[in-house]
Amino acid sequence: MINVGVIGFGYWGPNVVRNLMSIVGMRVKMVCDSDPHNLKRAKALYPHLHFSLDYKEIIDSPFIDAVAIVTSVSTHYEIAKRALKKGKHIFVEKPMAKSSVEAMELIKIADSKKLVIMVDHTFLFTGAVAKIKELMDKNMLGDLYYYDSTRISLGLFQHDVNVIWDLAPHDFYIIDYLIRNKSCRISAIGIDHFNRGHENIAYITVHFKGGLIAHINTNWLSPVKVRNILIGGQKKMLVWNDLEADEKIKIYDRGISVDGQEGIYKMLVEYRSGDMIAPKLDTTEALKKEMVYFYECITKSQVPFNDGYAGLRVVEMLEATSRSLKQDGHEVCLHLSNP
Amino acid sequence: MINVGVIGFGYWGPNVVRNLMSIVGMRVKMVCDSDPHNLKRAKALYPHLHFSLDYKEIIDSPFIDAVAIVTSVSTHYEIAKRALKKGKHIFVEKPMAKSSVEAMELIKIADSKKLVIMVDHTFLFTGAVAKIKELMDKNMLGDLYYYDSTRISLGLFQHDVNVIWDLAPHDFYIIDYLIRNKSCRISAIGIDHFNRGHENIAYITVHFKGGLIAHINTNWLSPVKVRNILIGGQKKMLVWNDLEADEKIKIYDRGISVDGQEGIYKMLVEYRSGDMIAPKLDTTEALKKEMVYFYECITKSQVPFNDGYAGLRVVEMLEATSRSLKQDGHEVCLHLSNP
Amino acid sequence: MINVGVIGFGYWGPNVVRNLMSIVGMRVKMVCDSDPHNLKRAKALYPHLHFSLDYKEIIDSPFIDAVAIVTSVSTHYEIAKRALKKGKHIFVEKPMAKSSVEAMELIKIADSKKLVIMVDHTFLFTGAVAKIKELMDKNMLGDLYYYDSTRISLGLFQHDVNVIWDLAPHDFYIIDYLIRNKSCRISAIGIDHFNRGHENIAYITVHFKGGLIAHINTNWLSPVKVRNILIGGQKKMLVWNDLEADEKIKIYDRGISVDGQEGIYKMLVEYRSGDMIAPKLDTTEALKKEMVYFYECITKSQVPFNDGYAGLRVVEMLEATSRSLKQDGHEVCLHLSNP
Amino acid sequence: MINVGVIGFGYWGPNVVRNLMSIVGMRVKMVCDSDPHNLKRAKALYPHLHFSLDYKEIIDSPFIDAVAIVTSVSTHYEIAKRALKKGKHIFVEKPMAKSSVEAMELIKIADSKKLVIMVDHTFLFTGAVAKIKELMDKNMLGDLYYYDSTRISLGLFQHDVNVIWDLAPHDFYIIDYLIRNKSCRISAIGIDHFNRGHENIAYITVHFKGGLIAHINTNWLSPVKVRNILIGGQKKMLVWNDLEADEKIKIYDRGISVDGQEGIYKMLVEYRSGDMIAPKLDTTEALKKEMVYFYECITKSQVPFNDGYAGLRVVEMLEATSRSLKQDGHEVCLHLSNP
Repeated sequence: MINVGVIGFGYWGPNVVRNLMSIVGMRVKMVCDSDPHNLKRAKALYPHLHFSLDYKEIIDSPFIDAVAIVTSVSTHYEIAKRALKKGKHIFVEKPMAKSSVEAMELIKIADSKKLVIMVDHTFLFTGAVAKIKELMDKNMLGDLYYYDSTRISLGLFQHDVNVIWDLAPHDFYIIDYLIRNKSCRISAIGIDHFNRGHENIAYITVHFKGGLIAHINTNWLSPVKVRNILIGGQKKMLVWNDLEADEKIKIYDRGISVDGQEGIYKMLVEYRSGDMIAPKLDTTEALKKEMVYFYECITKSQVPFNDGYAGLRVVEMLEATSRSLKQDGHEVCLHLSNP
Repeated sequence: MINVGVIGFGYWGPNVVRNLMSIVGMRVKMVCDSDPHNLKRAKALYPHLHFSLDYKEIIDSPFIDAVAIVTSVSTHYEIAKRALKKGKHIFVEKPMAKSSVEAMELIKIADSKKLVIMVDHTFLFTGAVAKIKELMDKNMLGDLYYYDSTRISLGLFQHDVNVIWDLAPHDFYIIDYLIRNKSCRISAIGIDHFNRGHENIAYITVHFKGGLIAHINTNWLSPVKVRNILIGGQKKMLVWNDLEADEKIKIYDRGISVDGQEGIYKMLVEYRSGDMIAPKLDTTEALKKEMVYFYECITKSQVPFNDGYAGLRVVEMLEATSRSLKQDGHEVCLHLSNP
Repeated sequence: MINVGVIGFGYWGPNVVRNLMSIVGMRVKMVCDSDPHNLKRAKALYPHLHFSLDYKEIIDSPFIDAVAIVTSVSTHYEIAKRALKKGKHIFVEKPMAKSSVEAMELIKIADSKKLVIMVDHTFLFTGAVAKIKELMDKNMLGDLYYYDSTRISLGLFQHDVNVIWDLAPHDFYIIDYLIRNKSCRISAIGIDHFNRGHENIAYITVHFKGGLIAHINTNWLSPVKVRNILIGGQKKMLVWNDLEADEKIKIYDRGISVDGQEGIYKMLVEYRSGDMIAPKLDTTEALKKEMVYFYECITKSQVPFNDGYAGLRVVEMLEATSRSLKQDGHEVCLHLSNP
Repeated sequence: MINVGVIGFGYWGPNVVRNLMSIVGMRVKMVCDSDPHNLKRAKALYPHLHFSLDYKEIIDSPFIDAVAIVTSVSTHYEIAKRALKKGKHIFVEKPMAKSSVEAMELIKIADSKKLVIMVDHTFLFTGAVAKIKELMDKNMLGDLYYYDSTRISLGLFQHDVNVIWDLAPHDFYIIDYLIRNKSCRISAIGIDHFNRGHENIAYITVHFKGGLIAHINTNWLSPVKVRNILIGGQKKMLVWNDLEADEKIKIYDRGISVDGQEGIYKMLVEYRSGDMIAPKLDTTEALKKEMVYFYECITKSQVPFNDGYAGLRVVEMLEATSRSLKQDGHEVCLHLSNP
């Protein structure tokens, strides 16, 4: 039995607790939050648990094997470091840390103590990403031309990071998982309308070797919520609308064939427009699958694919966007870290 | 009675002819296209007109008062120049010319001969833009934060211009019409997947003085057609989905109020989420209204708001994107021309 | 060359003329409408045609081979009868006539003179119906359980028929074409909110032998336009949303399997939920294909599948709804006519 | 403190328990379900509660003040009767009972013991119904012409009731709540494709005095889930799509004005098509609001509007549909019960 303490019961923490409670082999023992209001909500739902305002109580407890860190970004490093040093496996929210230096340090501690770091890259556990991965593994999409993500909604303005650090990590870890191309050039342009020191709208472009271009539109000031990703391949193209109840993924048998010999006039007639398929997707809650995987990685001493290095690469991409932002969109070259 | 000759009967030309035919005071006399196949289609629909493979026949005819130039971009300048020199008013497709030098030359000829240049900025005549203009004139949206346009679909690949010159002019002339801010910085990033010398995917960002950021996502390789524009203002925000049959414009009473004194925690509670209104829009065909306006400008010797200078400013913005593209997205500063 | 006269240039007539003009082998010679305003619109578009306020001029002309009757229902019989007697082939709007007696009389005249009657059952020529027919011919849907149509919008209130006679013919001829089951029981319930003698909202249910139930929801008072049809089969189910630009037809691999032996509890686990496919559809304008078919039937002396009998069966179903309406929804048994 | 026992932890029971746990003044003490699998799920989530396979344990416990009955329809009467006799307030799923005789008996017992019966008419507590009620109370819609509901999806086939008893109660209690018109004529047509003794598709029509027609389309065999209600009034019309995340209610300023003097031709020009408004709705979970109301009715000895009589009227309407179904849609006249 893995005994787990959960640090942070704000927006996402309740989901972590609820899913942990349904997993055979894991047991939530303690919940901590520095905000008494959050703690009160937790107590009403789970009166049988232990509660604390101080996360150190969880970390220092000898009865806790693993810690879920579901707090704001700026606190990840400090909490995670203490937890690892105390010999706890950690599950930590994305992005893993404020800097790649911090992330690397956490990786080293975990390595030296043979502890699991799992970074909460939730979408990798959705039926949608599983299907896209499957299509790509079977080369159903062909070479990728572009990945175009729109991730916009009204708020919530974070106080310690900009809109990119809030929303783009999802796209960064999805791209990293799908294409495993470690060499890229990143540029980012944004604006901070309220002089808060953090951009509230930003556009990111990433050129990967081999012709794939990724673009991410992030916006905290949109009146409508959009979570829409287009992936264009040589053979097939797909649209992933994560807000659709059914039919989140639509695969289009559409594209063009270019005939270099005969030039543009030939090309114009080679448009292909076939059927669209919305494949049935696994609808198991992603966070539940991720938690089961966390359990397996701990008990089988396995390295998760969403390990510290996956978390580090996301932080590296975020740092590159910050550098580019400061230089009005100047491209930053990047070689992502691997074990 | 204004007698009109139409040059070009490909994709858009038939709409120009059809609308001209319904306008009292204008009469289509001739249609020209260098492609015999297009000419044959024209003849089947309008057997009573004159036809020619050579546009010069229209321009040189003494029975023609005005010429509609509905050909590919690279031919606009040559045709328009000859037409103006022969004393014809011109209605010319967007973008007006291949370069600002060409555009400026056409403006000068027209000025010296007191002829009308109207650039086909069709969307300015839609019920949607009319409504947005009305809202802005009444300051219903408040100061603008952003203009975010997604203009993607499968093809058609143009042979003489890139995806920006094909799709972005719509956004450029709409922004120019709505905000009349002549000072901006433009950057553009794109990719040419097929080594054709023309980008097929490109992302444009424009910073206007005063904090407005515009972003335009153009893509010829999308499996789905999207024509979606978000405009975020301090007071209201709106979404314009041009592919909706009804409810093209949705105005949201949503936003945030930032209280600088009390910092982020205060701000977080100041989200505003009220009703959404989809106002009734004028559904008259935009091109018809534009043609009526063309007639009025000719007969009343009036300068249209979509005149040569409006066309020139669009070309100036396009040229800036081309410069930025060549420099991997480096920002280009721009002061747009005014009479 | 088949010379055609078109009677009626109101809402649908212009589409008939436009399509006829694009067909090799047919030539529109005259257009007639009793409303001078409509005639004026026709003249502006097609100055080279002949025009008349009196339909008899068309029918009596020796230069006319075929007549398209695009007028209100109550006038079909009189015009069609005169045209057939004068030896003209006819293309007549749905529903073919005000009564089955009238329809039968027209069929007999046409038979005796070997003339073509084609009833304008336009949707049979859409890519959507072609695809559904193909699926059914290949037994891809399995036995049909239901056909459920929602055909609602705001107006237009017809002055000579109720909402059923206006909207339900589409469903009646589609069902007749797809299932060819001539034995059914019909009931209809409706309401006439404005005491005009014609229902403005009505619900029709048809039981066909073998367990298929059809339901049609017709409404002239809906704030939104809906053209939605669900077809549920043992193997597959489909949704046809005719107002979708793309993806009009969605085929769902969903259903249930009932195991009679083990009762309901077994049944509950036998839900099937697989992929959805939106097949590529032929997007040729249906009316154009219908016109080409009209030309072929005339020139090859062929009996169209949308012949007088098809039109008659629709009228028989409409008459049955009228009888049921008068009896508060009492079922009316019906054996549809066949040659 | 009101101590509550929850009977039934299948599909809906977990929601009842979760909401009860968040209400100050109520405490869930026991959960019962005859299915050990369901009980196990309950234990995993709420290890601190008492559990039983036998509902009588809850009812007979002296520590329980109120009972939530969340079981299949056929068991409501027996459980509710025993609970009331033991002096417990009851919250019972819709429909309240299998027959109006049963429902009336429960009402009488409750009355004699001054106990609260609340029937779970959840949608009455949604922001959507609250908004519609508000519009009607202010006479914003004008006289109602129609209420048209589509309530279709794939399954779940109930084993003790037909599709009407499963889905139509929602519409019956909403209409009863909104229009309070106790005199109507009901007809229903359905089909039982699998010879299970229960219709799986059925269409219900209700004529209310004064010209309102209600229609309910219920279907357990639809490949897509639809929860769509149109309400047409003289002044405004609205569409309630309950599956929309935002904008569940859209109010259209559309309609017609009929001028009896001048007949149909005048009427045709009197279409009104104005703005659409999607009002902001209260998004509190309906079941939570209902539970708070249950608490208030118990503690303040108040009669809820969703009391036994409201439940009885729904059962009376259901019985009428059953009678009509047996007579192939013959209309059944009905006077709904009032205290």
